Amino acid sequence: MRVNDPDIKFLFEPQAIAVIGASHNPTKIGHKIVANILEGGYPGQVYPINPKGGEILGLQVYKSIEEITDKIDVAVIAIPAKLVYEAVQSCAHHGVKFAVIITSGFSEIGNTEEETKLVAYARAHGMRILGPNIFGLYSAKASLNATFGPSEITSGNIAIISQSGALGVALVGKTKAANMGLSTIVSVGNKSDLAEEELLEYLVSDEGTKAIMMYIEGIKNGETLDTTLQMATKKKPIVVLKSGRSKKGAIAAASHTGSLAGADEIFSDIMGQSGVLRAESIQEALNWCQVLSSSPLPQGDNCVIITNGGGIGVLATDACEKYGVPLYDDIETMHNVFAEVVPKFGSVKNPIDITGQASLQDYGRALKAAMSYDEIHSIICLGCEAAGFDPEFFSTTIETLFSSHKLDKPMVFSFVGGPKIEESIYYLKARGVPIFFDVYEAVSTFGALYAHHRNLKEYMEEKTGITISDQEIDFGLIEEILNRVKQEKRQFLLAYEAEKLMQAARVPMPQSSIARNLDEVVKAAREIGYPVVMKVVSKDIIHKSDVGGVALDLENTDEVIDAYQAIIQNCRSRMPNAIIEGVEVAEMVQKGTETIIGARRDQTFGPIVAFGLGGIYVEVMKDVSFRALPIDRKEAIAMIKQIKSYPLLLGVRGEPQKDIERVLDTILKLGTILESCKSISDIEINPLMVYEQGKGVKAVDVRILLTT
Amino acid sequence: MRVNDPDIKFLFEPQAIAVIGASHNPTKIGHKIVANILEGGYPGQVYPINPKGGEILGLQVYKSIEEITDKIDVAVIAIPAKLVYEAVQSCAHHGVKFAVIITSGFSEIGNTEEETKLVAYARAHGMRILGPNIFGLYSAKASLNATFGPSEITSGNIAIISQSGALGVALVGKTKAANMGLSTIVSVGNKSDLAEEELLEYLVSDEGTKAIMMYIEGIKNGETLDTTLQMATKKKPIVVLKSGRSKKGAIAAASHTGSLAGADEIFSDIMGQSGVLRAESIQEALNWCQVLSSSPLPQGDNCVIITNGGGIGVLATDACEKYGVPLYDDIETMHNVFAEVVPKFGSVKNPIDITGQASLQDYGRALKAAMSYDEIHSIICLGCEAAGFDPEFFSTTIETLFSSHKLDKPMVFSFVGGPKIEESIYYLKARGVPIFFDVYEAVSTFGALYAHHRNLKEYMEEKTGITISDQEIDFGLIEEILNRVKQEKRQFLLAYEAEKLMQAARVPMPQSSIARNLDEVVKAAREIGYPVVMKVVSKDIIHKSDVGGVALDLENTDEVIDAYQAIIQNCRSRMPNAIIEGVEVAEMVQKGTETIIGARRDQTFGPIVAFGLGGIYVEVMKDVSFRALPIDRKEAIAMIKQIKSYPLLLGVRGEPQKDIERVLDTILKLGTILESCKSISDIEINPLMVYEQGKGVKAVDVRILLTT
Repeated sequence: MRVNDPDIKFLFEPQAIAVIGASHNPTKIGHKIVANILEGGYPGQVYPINPKGGEILGLQVYKSIEEITDKIDVAVIAIPAKLVYEAVQSCAHHGVKFAVIITSGFSEIGNTEEETKLVAYARAHGMRILGPNIFGLYSAKASLNATFGPSEITSGNIAIISQSGALGVALVGKTKAANMGLSTIVSVGNKSDLAEEELLEYLVSDEGTKAIMMYIEGIKNGETLDTTLQMATKKKPIVVLKSGRSKKGAIAAASHTGSLAGADEIFSDIMGQSGVLRAESIQEALNWCQVLSSSPLPQGDNCVIITNGGGIGVLATDACEKYGVPLYDDIETMHNVFAEVVPKFGSVKNPIDITGQASLQDYGRALKAAMSYDEIHSIICLGCEAAGFDPEFFSTTIETLFSSHKLDKPMVFSFVGGPKIEESIYYLKARGVPIFFDVYEAVSTFGALYAHHRNLKEYMEEKTGITISDQEIDFGLIEEILNRVKQEKRQFLLAYEAEKLMQAARVPMPQSSIARNLDEVVKAAREIGYPVVMKVVSKDIIHKSDVGGVALDLENTDEVIDAYQAIIQNCRSRMPNAIIEGVEVAEMVQKGTETIIGARRDQTFGPIVAFGLGGIYVEVMKDVSFRALPIDRKEAIAMIKQIKSYPLLLGVRGEPQKDIERVLDTILKLGTILESCKSISDIEINPLMVYEQGKGVKAVDVRILLTT
Repeated sequence: MRVNDPDIKFLFEPQAIAVIGASHNPTKIGHKIVANILEGGYPGQVYPINPKGGEILGLQVYKSIEEITDKIDVAVIAIPAKLVYEAVQSCAHHGVKFAVIITSGFSEIGNTEEETKLVAYARAHGMRILGPNIFGLYSAKASLNATFGPSEITSGNIAIISQSGALGVALVGKTKAANMGLSTIVSVGNKSDLAEEELLEYLVSDEGTKAIMMYIEGIKNGETLDTTLQMATKKKPIVVLKSGRSKKGAIAAASHTGSLAGADEIFSDIMGQSGVLRAESIQEALNWCQVLSSSPLPQGDNCVIITNGGGIGVLATDACEKYGVPLYDDIETMHNVFAEVVPKFGSVKNPIDITGQASLQDYGRALKAAMSYDEIHSIICLGCEAAGFDPEFFSTTIETLFSSHKLDKPMVFSFVGGPKIEESIYYLKARGVPIFFDVYEAVSTFGALYAHHRNLKEYMEEKTGITISDQEIDFGLIEEILNRVKQEKRQFLLAYEAEKLMQAARVPMPQSSIARNLDEVVKAAREIGYPVVMKVVSKDIIHKSDVGGVALDLENTDEVIDAYQAIIQNCRSRMPNAIIEGVEVAEMVQKGTETIIGARRDQTFGPIVAFGLGGIYVEVMKDVSFRALPIDRKEAIAMIKQIKSYPLLLGVRGEPQKDIERVLDTILKLGTILESCKSISDIEINPLMVYEQGKGVKAVDVRILLTT
């Protein structure tokens, strides 16, 4: 946001609104928008604009925005693409704060130049742009339906930001059908200027919004989005549905909105880091929002399943593992709580099975027992249609149970049965009871609720903070190295430069030094300690081992002397014209657990860090974790633990634990360097050898690239 | 099945049926069953039995089965558990073919003894038992509703076998609500005698059944089930929903039906091998059955998505990857097929996007274009509610499109929209149109359809057959070895015995021989070839390397002589009382890619074979594949390719490909041995070193156990 930018509040709560392209023809979008604004009961001023003048739906039509003397907060633009630039200019001159550009035909079809021009003009004149290529904006607080979608929108506390216009319009209908109320729905389309992050700022502070759903196809500025999300999820649950997970899907998404989907693995990890809940399908995202916007949060991890059918109880148990819902397993307590309300053939172990013989009253008793016991924190209520469940009283019983306890602890319902049960489910759904046709659907919403609960809990716990202090890294020295590289207009660091940079960051590398004669060689080897390796130093010799310019595993002075003489002789005889500057004597690196740490500026997501076990684990098993920078110690631990091969660092087959602490340090250091040194685009240590706990790590090979 | 066993057909198509425990009290199960049989319109004879006599629902009640002179095919038993044994005896004496025992209170609550007694008596007298602990049986062909569930069941072509009674009853209702017709629904409960496999035999031959769904909690006889499924899936699609996937779920399942869930990974692999389609949730299983029972099979892999909204098109593309639906990507052809029916702003690449401006007529044109082009084999039809889609005509347009083309190629629909669209979806669902509220739900059904299509295609392709001929394995020698072990009442083979057995199977092991003096040692080393390893042979020395009894990497005669002398001296001085029999001289095994092959008799699934890469891949990454035996070459290749670390065998980082052919041989050989030698319970080669292609494998360590 720039200093003279308008407050985002005016986009959602404008005092006056203009519709440029308001049409007299009821089949046109420009008419529908005016009609929706009026039908929605918007209390502010509405100015239809059309060069033809006249009247639309009883409103005076202005021929141009210049005719209006009032201040306009939002101008909705629905005119052909080629006329939009001129309209943007007029709006900006008139002091319009936000231009909502419905029109399509810009970057999504390759017409990026025109889009860039619009934005440049608007921003230079203190106006912001939403769109283009969108269906508009609905805001419950302003009673404003400035969309060309359905005229009836149920107001409520769920906010939706959709990148896709068509899907956004359909979601207006779908939420209405599901009786889910919206606080806002807005499409961002091509995100030429405003993107999700700015809209989130408003939604996070808007008291009418309890849960936020975003449909994303491509990301324009991953770094700001990520930063915004990290803060926003601490205030409100945010559900993201991102398409383009698959390769073909990513291609389809790119051709749909003209923005990059980015690698899905990175997106997933970064969303998890931000505390965002990632849904897979539209239905899942809506289900989650419904429960997240209405349910209290669980006070702890003791979830209990109550069922009258063993089979669906088992299915729900499986689903709890899949979705990360923690099940209560204190057998004694549950026996005490439920023994009186569960018949002999039933089960008082979780899932609590009150059997098919139970009546609705029995079911109610079991639910109330769970409700009144404080150590039970949430309840999954299941049922199969059974003789004991009188369909006539089913819906009212469930409705009463839910409404009298809905503020106490989270509850979710699922029932399997015939037409009457299904009718009851529709009835209950319409009354806001979180009830689902399938057990997995029901448990999935609790998965989201618990994930959000864990995010908040973690946030409330004391932060361990970033542990890399500036003293540990000599940034002065690093800048010196980088400046020299830049002066030479190189985009990569030479081996010795990368080595020096690692020294400045106190990341241990194998010791080495250049020796120019036999005395120096012997001295160097002694200082480094045996065994050593030796390599000829000559710009003229590329394939050093081919000409006998390399010697490995030298264990004592004699071997070092022999090897030095052999190397010099080999090189002189085979490459007589090469200028030999000396030999490099280096520590022979001991075998350890190979890891890879990389930090880079991702095109989509900004500065990120990656960690994985080396070689085949990364290459074949794709076992890598990603985080957006900056990260603290806790996040670095999480990313190390996330990889499937983590047990190798803990030590398998009786091996001792590896020096995880030093791996952690190195991750944090690379992150800090990338964050601080803006000219670095890539640092990769591959491999970072990790030794036993207390014996440290060694960066065997380091590659550093500069930004172009 | 035994020789005198009744034909399973009589269970589903009985001529006369008795209800033992028919009750005068309308609230009792024994009354409900009689009522359901009558209301269902069963045309055969119905004999209610109750010692009180009298009349129930107009039928004469018999005091005992002995009073009936007619032949009874099926007796439904609904009396207290303690009376069931007596009833079973009477039924058997009367020549009843099948006893359907509704009563619970047997093995599911630990009362296994009584259950075993029932079955033993029945089987000895040529009667079979279904249950106990079930809700009964419905058969459309016989117009027979012998359940205590809902009295109205919609007849159709889907068969359901449910292990859970409560869920079975609820599914009767749920299928009715969804307007899905059933050919049969039957619960198997405790599976004391009849299990899924016998019921499948009938259902596979029943022309009225087009798709079969099974809900399984535990498996009694995995081997026969697996064999039956392998055949059955070649005739009809079978969908399995198995609960107890998770650890806690498996425990819950065991306490619910008293049967073991078995390791879920093994179950999954074996179901895949059998061609069974495994659903995750009830809703998914039903959706799949609906499409599998009514849709034609695709004629090929070219699936096309047609949508009026880019967003859901991208979501569907992702879903296609998730569910294995192959998308057509011949850009030129699609351009030719769709260019005329797609507007300029749309997309003629898959997904075909006719844009939100399209009308229902445009949508119909696009669908018809896809229908009439032979190279398009299936169509996913999506839509968002949009201005062009007149809700009034929506459902009739879709219904007409579907019904006029439903026999041509598979079609599935999903639409997102408001109350009118949702109403239309209900309307269309009720008319048998495969239409779903969520895109993922829709695509998931195509995933099942394509999986079934691939199974059938693979089956039609020529079989490669089992390649291990008997000549390759010397079974005579193996039996000799095993007999000696059995004589000694051991349950494991000693190292040299296991080695001999591998020789008999021509599985190469490292060469070795026992030498008793220096001359023999030198000779042995020369024969084996350098380098060799050496190990003292003495029953008295357990920790051989601790006393200096082992020498590695001996490269020539001198080193061998030195090592021999050192070993003897070390052992004599440190273990003066040990009797030294000699030393073992063995080939030093070269490092290769470590794999593990195991064949064993699984408690739940019978003889199985497992394959994985060695060490950490199996231990840490759980990267193992399983198959039920026997397997052929093709299946063995599939199980090698299934593991995630398979690229390591293909060669990564410029390494050459490994000798996969010999791995394959070894898998087939272990399978064949386990199949042929019934006394072996376990064979495990760990590791089997795999070398470059053409250089073979080496079984470094082999462990063989016998059945107890």
